[in-house]
Amino acid sequence: MARAHPHGAVRLAELIEGQRVAMLTTVEDDGSIRCRPMITSPGSFDGELWFFTSDDSAKVHEVEHDQHVNVSFSEPGRERYVSISGTASLVHDPDRARRLWSPQIASWFPRGADDPSLLLLRV
Amino acid sequence: MARAHPHGAVRLAELIEGQRVAMLTTVEDDGSIRCRPMITSPGSFDGELWFFTSDDSAKVHEVEHDQHVNVSFSEPGRERYVSISGTASLVHDPDRARRLWSPQIASWFPRGADDPSLLLLRV
Repeated sequence: MARAHPHGAVRLAELIEGQRVAMLTTVEDDGSIRCRPMITSPGSFDGELWFFTSDDSAKVHEVEHDQHVNVSFSEPGRERYVSISGTASLVHDPDRARRLWSPQIASWFPRGADDPSLLLLRV
Repeated sequence: MARAHPHGAVRLAELIEGQRVAMLTTVEDDGSIRCRPMITSPGSFDGELWFFTSDDSAKVHEVEHDQHVNVSFSEPGRERYVSISGTASLVHDPDRARRLWSPQIASWFPRGADDPSLLLLRV
């Protein structure tokens, strides 16, 4: 279990390296806690995590209502579990979307990185 | 991804069968979202999930403040992810604790099922 803080970014990067899927947790208007699997973007972790989403997604509404999120990574086979508490912001940034693009992302967003409904969720 | 509801209990039981560790998510007083790995109790799932905790644990305080919780199960190797949104209550019930007891639990609570500081967290 690791807590994210500036000096811990390197250690955290080691813990989550190679993990392709995170669980992103948000809070609904009524206080319900929801989580869903999200594809992580490749590249070295520098204190921020980036996810792709569509602007009509329920989680976009939830993050606009309450910025608190949690990102967790589970590797039951290695008994390794990482929990990252943070705040999320939504960014429309096609340049960054192109840099973060991957075949896994493309399978979810067939209209590509320039899709105007595409948003990046930064934690 | 499965949503828990009464008629879904059987299907959910199949999805989480054999998973020993869940991520339990709670919300802190300041709105921060925390999660931590928890050992699940063996036995068939009938709509309720039971976890062991100590009465001085931070999550006890969080659940008393806000009953909303989320329990998730991740199996990256099988690309299987389950999210269960619910409410939690704390129960002091040594009889049930004995029925749910396992060697994994014993390693966390060496004073046994009759430990007066032991609480069950029901979701």
